[in-house]
Amino acid sequence: MVAAIEPFHAIAISRMAHELAAEGRSIIHMEFGQPSTGAPAAAIARAHEVLDSDAMGYWESIPLKDRIARHYAEAYGVRVAREQIILTCGASPALVLALTSLFEPGDRLAFARPGYVAYRNTAKALYLDAHEIECGPAERFQLSAAAIAALDPAPAGIIVASPANPTGTIIARDELAAIVDVCRRRGIRIVSDEIYHGLSYAEPAASVLEWDSEAVVINSFSKYFSMAGWRLGWIVAPAGLIDTVRARMGSLFLTPPSLAQHAGLAAFDCGGELAGHVETYARNRAIMLRALPAMGLREIAPPDGAFYIYANVAHLTDDSLAFCAELLADTGVAAAPGIDFDPVDGGKFIRFSFAVSTPLVEEAIERMAPWFAARTEAMMAG
Amino acid sequence: MVAAIEPFHAIAISRMAHELAAEGRSIIHMEFGQPSTGAPAAAIARAHEVLDSDAMGYWESIPLKDRIARHYAEAYGVRVAREQIILTCGASPALVLALTSLFEPGDRLAFARPGYVAYRNTAKALYLDAHEIECGPAERFQLSAAAIAALDPAPAGIIVASPANPTGTIIARDELAAIVDVCRRRGIRIVSDEIYHGLSYAEPAASVLEWDSEAVVINSFSKYFSMAGWRLGWIVAPAGLIDTVRARMGSLFLTPPSLAQHAGLAAFDCGGELAGHVETYARNRAIMLRALPAMGLREIAPPDGAFYIYANVAHLTDDSLAFCAELLADTGVAAAPGIDFDPVDGGKFIRFSFAVSTPLVEEAIERMAPWFAARTEAMMAG
Repeated sequence: MVAAIEPFHAIAISRMAHELAAEGRSIIHMEFGQPSTGAPAAAIARAHEVLDSDAMGYWESIPLKDRIARHYAEAYGVRVAREQIILTCGASPALVLALTSLFEPGDRLAFARPGYVAYRNTAKALYLDAHEIECGPAERFQLSAAAIAALDPAPAGIIVASPANPTGTIIARDELAAIVDVCRRRGIRIVSDEIYHGLSYAEPAASVLEWDSEAVVINSFSKYFSMAGWRLGWIVAPAGLIDTVRARMGSLFLTPPSLAQHAGLAAFDCGGELAGHVETYARNRAIMLRALPAMGLREIAPPDGAFYIYANVAHLTDDSLAFCAELLADTGVAAAPGIDFDPVDGGKFIRFSFAVSTPLVEEAIERMAPWFAARTEAMMAG
Repeated sequence: MVAAIEPFHAIAISRMAHELAAEGRSIIHMEFGQPSTGAPAAAIARAHEVLDSDAMGYWESIPLKDRIARHYAEAYGVRVAREQIILTCGASPALVLALTSLFEPGDRLAFARPGYVAYRNTAKALYLDAHEIECGPAERFQLSAAAIAALDPAPAGIIVASPANPTGTIIARDELAAIVDVCRRRGIRIVSDEIYHGLSYAEPAASVLEWDSEAVVINSFSKYFSMAGWRLGWIVAPAGLIDTVRARMGSLFLTPPSLAQHAGLAAFDCGGELAGHVETYARNRAIMLRALPAMGLREIAPPDGAFYIYANVAHLTDDSLAFCAELLADTGVAAAPGIDFDPVDGGKFIRFSFAVSTPLVEEAIERMAPWFAARTEAMMAG
């Protein structure tokens, strides 16, 4: 028997949302972590040009690798060579590439619970020993150096995610430095998922590369650059791992999409437009953080970054999938069930993505407020 | 230690070719299996439209799945449901998806030697027991029912590839039926790589689905549809495996590129243009098959389909990588070394892709003829 993998349940909610939309219902999509804005204008203009001028064979863009390497110098003060950048078909296959390059079946891989669904599922599909570290509100739903120091035995590797999905919480600089320190001491490899970098509402998130040149970093154009469907991501590999990663890339994935590489290079010059998106998310976040507690959702992970609110709905349900389906059916607001992110306690949580327009966030709250009020009343009455 | 994976050596030849081109040298690219033509005009037109109208989030095209399902009815008389089609980021990740959905570490997976580099490398990266079946000129470099019947122990699965890479040989209908039969009898799962379907120079290749509804089929838009850099492929999964494949797709890869899905759907209506490509390849093939024996390359696998010639150069070298590098340096013609496809005898073979324009094929032969003549003379003198 091959390893059992749970489906990504938010996909079922999304499918249901699209069916309702096809029936003429007004749907607000807050179930997926994807910007509702498209790629920056200059990226789209570049794609139009390339469509007419390039036969688009298998290709890896050296200018894009150079631009990404420069980004590490500019954003983090970290020196990364072109050769360390491996372009991928998004962050998901980048994780597959990273894990197969670092670990073999049976190796223990630890990460936070709650955490992104693919960490658990990809680890299982590759027959790693997936070890979830419970990180509750007291830990701001995040890994800590102390939690990693306490692991017995030491895992072969950990996944760090800051800002995290589903919570948006960020690991403070000092704590990240301490995590690197304990991992170095215990011989634990770090895979750092930095896909939400650029989306912070206080201090920018630090890269683990600022302390650990042996870490493997994953990033993508799907979130900050608003290019989810273009399927372009990258790995920063430590020098000693480049050949291992490259050989796997060639056989497991071959090359990333050509057009996306051209457009992605152009997107690096769209800082103003992209900053505008972050301003929208900041506004949406403030609206949500004001409205949700008034709706009775008082226990919310502090969304320092990304574009998620992970809310405790334990007073209303312990079946978040059914709850999301009912919320959608009644209000047209699609949210992701916590069970995608936490197989133990996720039945009591739901995740909203606020990467939609501000009027849609306002509309979603207007629809949800009476619905949550009625639910709360029913629970108290019942 | 993670599994050791050989690099795809043709990439090194290609990199060298691009460096020479940057120095002003005239290069003819016959090292990769990619059409030099771009996507069909209607596909490009559709992509322009979508670029201006769609924010391109994570997305799976239901119309494209329906169109692919219809293709199996039209091309093979096989009934396939929409749900059986899983869209992927090209055939390479489709293979990863198929293998992780069917097999677990230690399972034996058998396939022909010579064979596509990713079969061996992906099997190794997933800790399968990669078992190469020697298939020489006597077997037309292809698997046979007899060879599979003789395997002891029976493997968990086999990969069938017809037309094959690097040889272009096709398995005859009767033999394919016999292969299905022996596999059914011995409980061997079939993964059928049908990426070169549509590119045949005699009878069209049969799909293994004509006999085996339990097989997993891999295909892509990279070859017949001339859309290599768009990174779009698909799996046909048997009904009982759909949930397993889907769950892995969601976590390991998420979704295929959105724009490519729109363009790929349009490409299905471009039969005339695509037939023109096949006519070009047929012309190129005929030119190569006339010219190569005159250059002393007399042992050539019969290229029934695809766009490759796999030629024995044992009278000139047993180091095909160095040989390809010298051929490229001296003539500007890039070819792939046989070691990518056959770790045992591949030092004595090279692979030419003739998916370039006919004038370039003619130019390549004009450059290579005196070079091979000089080499042959030197070997005979030495």
